[in-house]
Amino acid sequence: MKASSSPLRSFGSDNHSGVHPKILEALVAINQGHAHSYGEDPLSHQLEKEIQRLMPLAHKTFLVFNGTAANVLALKVALKSHQACLCSEVSHLNLDECAAPERVAGRKLIPRPSHDGKLRPEDLEESIIRRGDQHFAQVRMLSITQPTELGTIYTLEELKDLREFCSRHKLMLHIDGARWANAACFLGVSWEQMLQAADPDLLSLGGTKNGLMGAEALIVFERARELAEDLRYQRKQLLQLPSKTRFLAAQMLAYLRDDLYLEIAHWSLDRAQELEQAISGIEGLHLQYPVQSNALFVQFPKTWTKALRQKYFFYIWDEQQWVARWMTSFDTTSEDIHNFAQELRQQSQKERSL
Amino acid sequence: MKASSSPLRSFGSDNHSGVHPKILEALVAINQGHAHSYGEDPLSHQLEKEIQRLMPLAHKTFLVFNGTAANVLALKVALKSHQACLCSEVSHLNLDECAAPERVAGRKLIPRPSHDGKLRPEDLEESIIRRGDQHFAQVRMLSITQPTELGTIYTLEELKDLREFCSRHKLMLHIDGARWANAACFLGVSWEQMLQAADPDLLSLGGTKNGLMGAEALIVFERARELAEDLRYQRKQLLQLPSKTRFLAAQMLAYLRDDLYLEIAHWSLDRAQELEQAISGIEGLHLQYPVQSNALFVQFPKTWTKALRQKYFFYIWDEQQWVARWMTSFDTTSEDIHNFAQELRQQSQKERSL
Amino acid sequence: MKASSSPLRSFGSDNHSGVHPKILEALVAINQGHAHSYGEDPLSHQLEKEIQRLMPLAHKTFLVFNGTAANVLALKVALKSHQACLCSEVSHLNLDECAAPERVAGRKLIPRPSHDGKLRPEDLEESIIRRGDQHFAQVRMLSITQPTELGTIYTLEELKDLREFCSRHKLMLHIDGARWANAACFLGVSWEQMLQAADPDLLSLGGTKNGLMGAEALIVFERARELAEDLRYQRKQLLQLPSKTRFLAAQMLAYLRDDLYLEIAHWSLDRAQELEQAISGIEGLHLQYPVQSNALFVQFPKTWTKALRQKYFFYIWDEQQWVARWMTSFDTTSEDIHNFAQELRQQSQKERSL
Amino acid sequence: MKASSSPLRSFGSDNHSGVHPKILEALVAINQGHAHSYGEDPLSHQLEKEIQRLMPLAHKTFLVFNGTAANVLALKVALKSHQACLCSEVSHLNLDECAAPERVAGRKLIPRPSHDGKLRPEDLEESIIRRGDQHFAQVRMLSITQPTELGTIYTLEELKDLREFCSRHKLMLHIDGARWANAACFLGVSWEQMLQAADPDLLSLGGTKNGLMGAEALIVFERARELAEDLRYQRKQLLQLPSKTRFLAAQMLAYLRDDLYLEIAHWSLDRAQELEQAISGIEGLHLQYPVQSNALFVQFPKTWTKALRQKYFFYIWDEQQWVARWMTSFDTTSEDIHNFAQELRQQSQKERSL
Repeated sequence: MKASSSPLRSFGSDNHSGVHPKILEALVAINQGHAHSYGEDPLSHQLEKEIQRLMPLAHKTFLVFNGTAANVLALKVALKSHQACLCSEVSHLNLDECAAPERVAGRKLIPRPSHDGKLRPEDLEESIIRRGDQHFAQVRMLSITQPTELGTIYTLEELKDLREFCSRHKLMLHIDGARWANAACFLGVSWEQMLQAADPDLLSLGGTKNGLMGAEALIVFERARELAEDLRYQRKQLLQLPSKTRFLAAQMLAYLRDDLYLEIAHWSLDRAQELEQAISGIEGLHLQYPVQSNALFVQFPKTWTKALRQKYFFYIWDEQQWVARWMTSFDTTSEDIHNFAQELRQQSQKERSL
Repeated sequence: MKASSSPLRSFGSDNHSGVHPKILEALVAINQGHAHSYGEDPLSHQLEKEIQRLMPLAHKTFLVFNGTAANVLALKVALKSHQACLCSEVSHLNLDECAAPERVAGRKLIPRPSHDGKLRPEDLEESIIRRGDQHFAQVRMLSITQPTELGTIYTLEELKDLREFCSRHKLMLHIDGARWANAACFLGVSWEQMLQAADPDLLSLGGTKNGLMGAEALIVFERARELAEDLRYQRKQLLQLPSKTRFLAAQMLAYLRDDLYLEIAHWSLDRAQELEQAISGIEGLHLQYPVQSNALFVQFPKTWTKALRQKYFFYIWDEQQWVARWMTSFDTTSEDIHNFAQELRQQSQKERSL
Repeated sequence: MKASSSPLRSFGSDNHSGVHPKILEALVAINQGHAHSYGEDPLSHQLEKEIQRLMPLAHKTFLVFNGTAANVLALKVALKSHQACLCSEVSHLNLDECAAPERVAGRKLIPRPSHDGKLRPEDLEESIIRRGDQHFAQVRMLSITQPTELGTIYTLEELKDLREFCSRHKLMLHIDGARWANAACFLGVSWEQMLQAADPDLLSLGGTKNGLMGAEALIVFERARELAEDLRYQRKQLLQLPSKTRFLAAQMLAYLRDDLYLEIAHWSLDRAQELEQAISGIEGLHLQYPVQSNALFVQFPKTWTKALRQKYFFYIWDEQQWVARWMTSFDTTSEDIHNFAQELRQQSQKERSL
Repeated sequence: MKASSSPLRSFGSDNHSGVHPKILEALVAINQGHAHSYGEDPLSHQLEKEIQRLMPLAHKTFLVFNGTAANVLALKVALKSHQACLCSEVSHLNLDECAAPERVAGRKLIPRPSHDGKLRPEDLEESIIRRGDQHFAQVRMLSITQPTELGTIYTLEELKDLREFCSRHKLMLHIDGARWANAACFLGVSWEQMLQAADPDLLSLGGTKNGLMGAEALIVFERARELAEDLRYQRKQLLQLPSKTRFLAAQMLAYLRDDLYLEIAHWSLDRAQELEQAISGIEGLHLQYPVQSNALFVQFPKTWTKALRQKYFFYIWDEQQWVARWMTSFDTTSEDIHNFAQELRQQSQKERSL
């Protein structure tokens, strides 16, 4: 089969990259003999232990196919249908899951305005109303994204504040961690330290956007351990029980072992910061948010778009303000960055010379 | 990473095997550069064409993660919530999808008794009642499985009869083809010939049980082409839009090209028939259904179980009658068959000698 | 406004009658002043007590609009979405609720063949399988109808047997009691005695088919008291929280007080038995089930239908066997019975004289 | 049965009143003989015609039990599950239906900030984004409330603007008209004139809050007539098919005939304006919104509450700002208004004298 990838380098998303070589190697290595399916294979059991090594309070790990599924499964299993979930207006849950939280989980989201993608207790407080009123879906969960959809990152202090807010109002806390490793990398802390601060009930741990072929995990922590028994069935019911689980487990294991997750996170964060520096000072470009993860949100003149798109792929995040999202990945090279910045500089100069 | 597979040879399921070497090769080969995600990659487009080569009336192909998802997506997109689907009492839809048809699709199944897993028009006719009665979920679809869950296969004639039944009562026809290639192989016909007989609206085309790592497809045929537009959104909503689609497309392409699907189907069918012959005449064994696919359903004395399970893994399909299901796969060897039959013969002799 | 009722006497259903005069009187009497809505009115509180007088183990009573709603609410609140409910193939749940159990409650029904509408433990036993298997919706409830949809009635002994079956397999027991009072009347026992035998978790207590304008109740018994808190919200969410609840409570109170429920049950049962006697011996008529409630299921020559329908309305229950259902009500008169039997006799004689 | 109403006069809600005498009379009058159930009675057919007299473009009328149900049924039948509905942040749909739009209809709401409860095209425009993007629930409906939940009323001009907005973006338009008659009354126009301006697809027509015992209707207009066939089944499935429909139809007919709806709307609006005048100038009271319907939203010192509540019942709408909602009804008297204003004046004076 011929290589079928796009001829263009892409800053479109970290899922435009393929599979990290070490992860592909792991898949090849374990493809021998027979193994049980549906989570009963030895690799899935090893993964449980590996997760607990990195997150000592993890009670149980459920591999699923994608991040939307991990999030929707969390909502469905943790909330009753008359309970609601607070989330950011710009969250993946609210904007990018095609109403699966509502139709598939059957749960109500209460979206709240964010500050650069982040929620603060003081903004959420006013949503804690009408306790016990049978007409009103009772707020019972907060879902945050770390790093946020805008590439920003909650500090340990901010996580503690949200934890305290949840405890005060008896809310469960879910973290959408599609790029979880990137947050720890930026903060310079371990996963355990982030978890000590946030002390969540549930974590959607991302893999696919970090170099895996396709695997995510929903992790149930000790404080919510009573959900695990139902999750066995609920995962299957939400169409998320993989058949040959050893091939998902192998990816996640390879990612977690030998610090590969750190290596990938560092690399993509370094490239993002490299890009930030490389474009600093280019007239016409306006960075929208601090660069704390592997994404830059940049406003630029719409007229540049055609020329840029001939060599690089990227999405326009906000068509009204003409803001693009540029993402780096484990396979973004310094050369990619250099060339792209060069191209941007040319567009800027061309415009000024008109 | 150490090989993690079970030390035992398994006749438990065709998903206890790993990935067929040619399919793994394909995955390795295409892992380069960037590609669009979410179905917009070149391989996904090639797959559309490849499917149409084998099934000229295919209108659109939607890759999904597993067979349960393909089936549930078919129910959801093709039926309104007040419409019901006829299926066999022993169908995967009815027994093995943990109420996803009901809770996730939100559709009512009307299970009907089958004959060796197969449905006949005369048995379904009595379910076509109360047309226009607002209290009664209106029957609007028939879902059959080819090969059936009991390993039997509808003949072309039987498919034509069911097609005629559906047309007469204005029902849509869905085929669960988790092991679709095996049916064509047994009948000695092409996929196109099976499709000409059944003329279905929707087909769940299996891959994972036939040597893929994990990929299935829901195929919409021309007669139901108006469903395709909604399916784009509904696939995403049912948590089935893969991120790096090129890696699912590559598996399915490798499977369909160079007749690999035929090779795998032949091999596993041959091994099943080899096992049937090898155990023929062993006292105490009772084959339950004709062997037309890669599964044997065999009743045997419960007392043999412990000894057999020390060397081979398999499931007990019916605990009350003590019927086991023994499945072959692309990697089942003649030696496996020989040794297993040998073991069964020893059990039988041991019992007679008591 | 002119009287708008049909000119024909109807044996079609007990909901073709209007409102019992004493119940209408009660509605008129309480229509004064202001009262709280949504269940917080004094009459709703009185009803709680009245229910507890008749059913000492009743924990909480939830008024709803109709029987379908009471049943579906019971399924939804008592089962998790991966748990299933056993019911009779001819149950209202399975046949007459337009897939609301599946789409609205999101729960799987497992319909079982019945004997004259009744289920026996020995027929259910084989459905208790695959405990702990994540692919299989776990059976967790039995729903029976008393009297059954075929007008037959479980004896106290039969109820005890089903209770024992439920306890043995850790199932909840729901009773659809759309015509509950009729069962007690036929058995000659109190409601409390029926409840002592069955010891259900939940009862759908019918009103509308017994002379009310429109009110039913879902009653939660002590053994399931933990469901009551959720039910407050779930009733609202299932669109069943009446606004001016005092007018539903008043109907149910009038029905339960001064033995009106007994009077109505006796009357309609007496008329049904009167009809049974009156048609006994008429050639061509074949009673299908024992007459134990206010319904007769009678097979007769299709050719009689047109003439009969000119004077009386009724439904054909089974179009293939040509079985009609004839129901009596609180306002069916002995004259109605006499005249209808006379008409049937004439049809029979006309046929024989041909 | 003793009168069970609260001893207090209530300004809590227009559903704290009982049934308007003329409507109760109608119920008594039609309680004779037998009639078909489930919408096939003569009164239901008369109601269809009566609705068409007042709203010539009405295609079909579906009686349901309450307003939440009418709204949720509209969402479910008109939208596919991947389509979303714009509504006001303060709408009943969003705040008072206990997540039924999400869990029961399975539809996503996109709540938007309102101006005194009203939405304007310019505020909605920015929600019309990501057309064709499979990750994003596609906006396909606008639901507005007339009068709004804050008692304000869209002018004919404002309705036309929203109609134009919907047409431009191919959105369906649903109106929640729980107190629809009040809006026409305030505007001094006919129902037909309001409908000509808004030209909606669906209208939830309220009854219970306007003097009925309990009945609402979902009206499908010609422009959405293809929804009517499904609605027959979907109403039943959403637990909203009343059994003895003649008693709901009779209420609605009595309400619509002889201009009773006008009389009730005028009366309650007059009392609201009387209250507005009576309290004008009382120090400490702050009216929040223009009084255009039968509700006043008034901020006042929290310290007055206990004394006021000893004689009158009302709800605190906003606990943070201490805003009460005071509603009038068909049975609110000028004496009620006078006495209540007197009480408020005393509280005000008491405070000033401290």
